[in-house]
Amino acid sequence: MTDIKNIEWIAVDWGTSNLRVWAMQGAQVLAQAQSGDGMGGLTRDGFGPALTALIADWNVGPATPIIACGMVGSRQGWVEAPYRAVPCAPLDAQLITVPDTSLNVRVIPGLRQDTPADVMRGEETQIAGFLALNPGWDGVICLPGTHAKWVQISAGEVVSFQTFMSGELFALLSGHSVLRHSVQSGDGDQAAFDEAVSDTISRPEKLAARLFSIRASDLLQATAPATARARLSGLLIGAELAAARPYWLGQNIALIGTPEHSRNYASALAAQGVPATITDAERMTLAGLTAAYRHSKDAT
Amino acid sequence: MTDIKNIEWIAVDWGTSNLRVWAMQGAQVLAQAQSGDGMGGLTRDGFGPALTALIADWNVGPATPIIACGMVGSRQGWVEAPYRAVPCAPLDAQLITVPDTSLNVRVIPGLRQDTPADVMRGEETQIAGFLALNPGWDGVICLPGTHAKWVQISAGEVVSFQTFMSGELFALLSGHSVLRHSVQSGDGDQAAFDEAVSDTISRPEKLAARLFSIRASDLLQATAPATARARLSGLLIGAELAAARPYWLGQNIALIGTPEHSRNYASALAAQGVPATITDAERMTLAGLTAAYRHSKDAT
Repeated sequence: MTDIKNIEWIAVDWGTSNLRVWAMQGAQVLAQAQSGDGMGGLTRDGFGPALTALIADWNVGPATPIIACGMVGSRQGWVEAPYRAVPCAPLDAQLITVPDTSLNVRVIPGLRQDTPADVMRGEETQIAGFLALNPGWDGVICLPGTHAKWVQISAGEVVSFQTFMSGELFALLSGHSVLRHSVQSGDGDQAAFDEAVSDTISRPEKLAARLFSIRASDLLQATAPATARARLSGLLIGAELAAARPYWLGQNIALIGTPEHSRNYASALAAQGVPATITDAERMTLAGLTAAYRHSKDAT
Repeated sequence: MTDIKNIEWIAVDWGTSNLRVWAMQGAQVLAQAQSGDGMGGLTRDGFGPALTALIADWNVGPATPIIACGMVGSRQGWVEAPYRAVPCAPLDAQLITVPDTSLNVRVIPGLRQDTPADVMRGEETQIAGFLALNPGWDGVICLPGTHAKWVQISAGEVVSFQTFMSGELFALLSGHSVLRHSVQSGDGDQAAFDEAVSDTISRPEKLAARLFSIRASDLLQATAPATARARLSGLLIGAELAAARPYWLGQNIALIGTPEHSRNYASALAAQGVPATITDAERMTLAGLTAAYRHSKDAT
């Protein structure tokens, strides 16, 4: 058994594909662990054993607070944590307790927007972390990823948001479409990326027209895979930026995502003359979970 | 053994997923057969056995002409039939003979366009069939499908063309993305389809913004699957029409596709005030293979 003393609480980021946990003392990380036991692969009675196995080495008692965010709170998750409607603060003191478990687990609810219909689960925690670290910040937060979110923040509240499937489209097109033959991994081709972003940000209808040309260029001109891959990424991000223009035009932008995602989005925004602050996604998640833990302590 | 007399030649449509054959006497079909032995599932030495097995019941000798179109002529096919460059007639007398087989098989080459880069294999045969049945026809032919083609025809030649991945995108999004939960099969919702086409044809950037809202509308408002499915189809076809506008605006349009595809495209075009002639895809394929057979006879 790993000898970790003074565990005050456990932070949990439980998404569709992965489960990550941190043993915490206040805002300080004592230890961390992760597994592939994401929500997508579990039935309701599988969540308890998956979490127990991952933290078995830690000294966690039945009263140790465990705060979780992400798809663990969806209808197919461990407990359904009903969405809170925007406009609202990204977090409040109301967490949803998981019933019928020997652990003391509470789940952070996601957010909903009724018109246009949209939802998030997990990003609200990263947003709360960002606002905890940057009190009084107003502007737009972009969270690139499988389902990228653009989120308008004002006076500590999420005012509105919009989700784009660009990340999932990239995964499907690069892994499962006819383009997979042409976009194998490779170092980024910045010029090809920039040109593709410029193409679809100014004329978004070109997305539909340009996708197959990635394959045809490979067949007829043997385009380098790194160039084809950068072009696909650029076309999709450019189309997203064209649609998200009301979110970023003239705004103060913060990016929360993986280093690669954030670099691509920052580069595409910079080409439009829009500076963006890049932040560390894991740090925002932990800061948000910490804020939720503190809220919940204050409330009890 | 099925007793089929007077087989003059064999017509073969060999795509990525399917193999279809017809026993022919001139332009008359004597018998037909099909299997799932598409190009995508075969190595080079698998083509001969797959075809032989499918026509085993027919009285086909080593000299019987067999004319094939489609992906069978690709680099990963039975023999590589190099693309012919547009502008050119969809067919000429030059067919590519399959070597090292006891059958007399010739393959119709596909077409290439160098700028913008594009390719087709199989559609040139359907176009040739349409032109054989409609001599002197000028206008634009749209061939919906996995990789939809828009093709400008003038004086019997293919002048230019453009490929759209809308069909493959629909298959990926409806079968493999987060939207799969929301767009199960259902009867068409024409109003939802029309509205979605109108959305993206006038503002194509909305494609990126509207995809995830199909999922969110289901979660928050329990949208009917048939409505969600029609919306996804309409968004993709509308975005394609926005990009293909130079092809159809003020043009004479013919559609070659499955009845469902053709109906959707015709409906979307009609909403733009553009009438389109719907044709039967299999009939066009057979007419094109027949034209290729006659060309090849004339050439020998």
